Amino acid sequence: MDPYIQNFFYPSSLCIVGASTKEKSIGYELLRSIQIYGYEGNVYPVNPKAEFVLGYKCYNDIHSVPGIPELAIVVVPKAFAEESIEKLLDKGVKSIILVTAGFREVGREGAEAEKSILSKVRNSGARLVGPNCMGIINTLNDVKLNATFVAEKPLTGKTAFLSQSGAIGAAVLNSLRETGIKFGHFISVGNKADISENDLLEFWQNDENIETITLYLESFVNGEEFINHFLKGKITKPVIILKAGRTSSGMKAASSHTGALSASDKVVDAVLKQFGIIRVDTLNELFNTAKGFENFSVPHGDKIAVLTNAGGPAILAVDALEKRGLSLAQLTERTKSSLREIVHPEGSVENPVDLLPGGTAEQYKIVNEILLKDENVDAIVSIFVEPVMVSAFPVIENVNSIKNSKPIFQVVMPLPEFWDEYRNNSKYVKPLFRNPEEPSMVISNLLFYSKNSHEQKYLSPNESTFPLKLQAIYPAI
Amino acid sequence: MDPYIQNFFYPSSLCIVGASTKEKSIGYELLRSIQIYGYEGNVYPVNPKAEFVLGYKCYNDIHSVPGIPELAIVVVPKAFAEESIEKLLDKGVKSIILVTAGFREVGREGAEAEKSILSKVRNSGARLVGPNCMGIINTLNDVKLNATFVAEKPLTGKTAFLSQSGAIGAAVLNSLRETGIKFGHFISVGNKADISENDLLEFWQNDENIETITLYLESFVNGEEFINHFLKGKITKPVIILKAGRTSSGMKAASSHTGALSASDKVVDAVLKQFGIIRVDTLNELFNTAKGFENFSVPHGDKIAVLTNAGGPAILAVDALEKRGLSLAQLTERTKSSLREIVHPEGSVENPVDLLPGGTAEQYKIVNEILLKDENVDAIVSIFVEPVMVSAFPVIENVNSIKNSKPIFQVVMPLPEFWDEYRNNSKYVKPLFRNPEEPSMVISNLLFYSKNSHEQKYLSPNESTFPLKLQAIYPAI
Repeated sequence: MDPYIQNFFYPSSLCIVGASTKEKSIGYELLRSIQIYGYEGNVYPVNPKAEFVLGYKCYNDIHSVPGIPELAIVVVPKAFAEESIEKLLDKGVKSIILVTAGFREVGREGAEAEKSILSKVRNSGARLVGPNCMGIINTLNDVKLNATFVAEKPLTGKTAFLSQSGAIGAAVLNSLRETGIKFGHFISVGNKADISENDLLEFWQNDENIETITLYLESFVNGEEFINHFLKGKITKPVIILKAGRTSSGMKAASSHTGALSASDKVVDAVLKQFGIIRVDTLNELFNTAKGFENFSVPHGDKIAVLTNAGGPAILAVDALEKRGLSLAQLTERTKSSLREIVHPEGSVENPVDLLPGGTAEQYKIVNEILLKDENVDAIVSIFVEPVMVSAFPVIENVNSIKNSKPIFQVVMPLPEFWDEYRNNSKYVKPLFRNPEEPSMVISNLLFYSKNSHEQKYLSPNESTFPLKLQAIYPAI
Repeated sequence: MDPYIQNFFYPSSLCIVGASTKEKSIGYELLRSIQIYGYEGNVYPVNPKAEFVLGYKCYNDIHSVPGIPELAIVVVPKAFAEESIEKLLDKGVKSIILVTAGFREVGREGAEAEKSILSKVRNSGARLVGPNCMGIINTLNDVKLNATFVAEKPLTGKTAFLSQSGAIGAAVLNSLRETGIKFGHFISVGNKADISENDLLEFWQNDENIETITLYLESFVNGEEFINHFLKGKITKPVIILKAGRTSSGMKAASSHTGALSASDKVVDAVLKQFGIIRVDTLNELFNTAKGFENFSVPHGDKIAVLTNAGGPAILAVDALEKRGLSLAQLTERTKSSLREIVHPEGSVENPVDLLPGGTAEQYKIVNEILLKDENVDAIVSIFVEPVMVSAFPVIENVNSIKNSKPIFQVVMPLPEFWDEYRNNSKYVKPLFRNPEEPSMVISNLLFYSKNSHEQKYLSPNESTFPLKLQAIYPAI
């Protein structure tokens, strides 16, 4: 594992070049994020005038910073960026995040400046994230580094999230308290002058704190290299990708925005599918799928049992299952006869199993346990609409308490009070779904990965559906 | 307009047969909802034993209720349902909601009981909602009736919402404080023994408080009658429908749940399309589209300008526009030259117009105004991701303040604090979108309606794509 990439996420010390005492400036907010989230390594703000920033002792130039910080974050105005980076390289810093914008994304002159910085970085054997990015987060307990200018405190998870767009990164971070999205690492890669998805795929594959990799991309920096990772079986962790610029207008917008050339979307789609890389359409699906990998075992097959206390949501769930290529499990006679002892005679022991609005927490637990034992059932979608007489919390907790190897996806449609109660009092950290349609999306993505990954499929250059262009991303085999 | 249907939504007095002093019982919670929401008509609880329920004077039998209530809500156990309804009819009550379950949905015996009640209701010239339903809501200021057992206080809007599923109705009501969904009327129609979507379409078409009609259906009670409304041009208001049971498994689940025969989904789809009825796939799309009709004018065409302060979300928006058959407007030279005076030189004056993260509230207003004047622009999607240095609230309010005939759909991706600030301090009641993909769904549904409604298209019985079965819903022309 490249130690200089490692340092971006696990630095024992860092300096912020361009730290500022001015509230709402990037140089202030970024340091504030680091402080609030509780990073315990050494922090060295660099500012030519200030003595202290946010209580941290400040250094007036890079050379006076003690030792060699493992990470440097540069937020100075563009005019001073190259000079700052030269000084950092001079000092021996090997991992640099250049937050400052105004490079390749603004035209030819910016591109030249970016190239010049990059060549200096490369000559020193250092690595660069950015420019035009919003920083990095490591939520893991022994690091707790939020080096972005969104001063939120993200929850710890095992998913890595790379965003090519700073704004998409910011939007996700802005919404964390509402969505409850958890991750292990976050990185905004900006213009990807040096470090790109290709470096990070390899890094995360080898980082045992990360189990799932999610990417928001607008372009591939090098499609051949990207695919090579999978072709050679080097990447085995689930990779979920939201590739913006699917349509021709979107692609045009993407290439004018990033200055990157986008591949034909059909090609991208076919190649990703070939290698078991999960492609999603929205941020919501990206994070729901990541949540799926983080919290549920992959079902052994596509036969799903649906349990409900009401018909309507179950029908919507079943529609969604079929649309995603999953099927309703045929329950065995034995299961049905066990269910008959529990389920109200006016309910249903056929799949979807219906407990009616009177269904209790106790019944939800027993019925789920019966369904788990059915050899025809690979996974359960357990739906609970909160009626007047049964509270949601005990039902959800009862189902959470079941020990099982097959996954149970719970959908809950409660009064708003439930969510606070769940956040504050649940003994389990299992995620819940709000809509009956959501689990099928997650299940089908989990199954897609388990069926298609690991298999080393080779593309035939003669395959007629692939335009010539694609050959650029064939590995030389 | 049938006055006895009118009475369901606008009763000057009502009785609740089966009102109860027992918390968490339907007969208690329903009365509590009525009380909390502030219905000002006369309320007569009927309970053989209680003297008061929730402070309301209670009547021990139906006959002792003063006068003839305009609406009766029956929540007694099933064994007493028929007898209660007989007494109500005897008294001269003409509008009855039978909340009680255990009829057609549970089998042959229940179906017989339902039939028997229905024939008595019909013989008296009365009308029945239910059985197996969860009641009715009218949010309008001079009525304020929440006669359901979800004791929420829904906000007033101009959309009517019919749910064939009580649970879907309950789930939507449960979530009101989170989603901010507004409506004028809500009705849970249950088994639709008498009153169905067909009666209510006609009623709402003629009710000037209602502008948009939304339906969650699992089956059509009479497809021919449904279509006849549209064929004869009797229904001109926008109708948005979520028809569950799209897939064959979903259809099977639906028919076992409601006992209703479902039409082939392909047929349903083709017929709805023919008549400009908007079909949606999820509850989220149902209410987002209704919100669209309630708050935005229908664009005159499909040419959309996108304004943003960041590339990523704009690309996702553009992808979504093209996927929904909309197109990016070609801005005129005049527009672009006006924009050049406002937009940062490193931003973009091409569509999508990019103000960069520094874009201010003032710039958002001026740029939207310039775009509105462009004859090539039919609607605007204005996206704002909250950066560190510009607060979301003034930007959103500034854009809301623009007076215009072309619609502006605002997407905002802020810190969570924004939402409270907006709810409490906004001078406008305009809805906002949280995801860059959402406006295109709404715009395309608005355009679909405006292009396809009103036209009286006749289906040709020879049209080969239609299976024979469909002929059952041809009108005799």
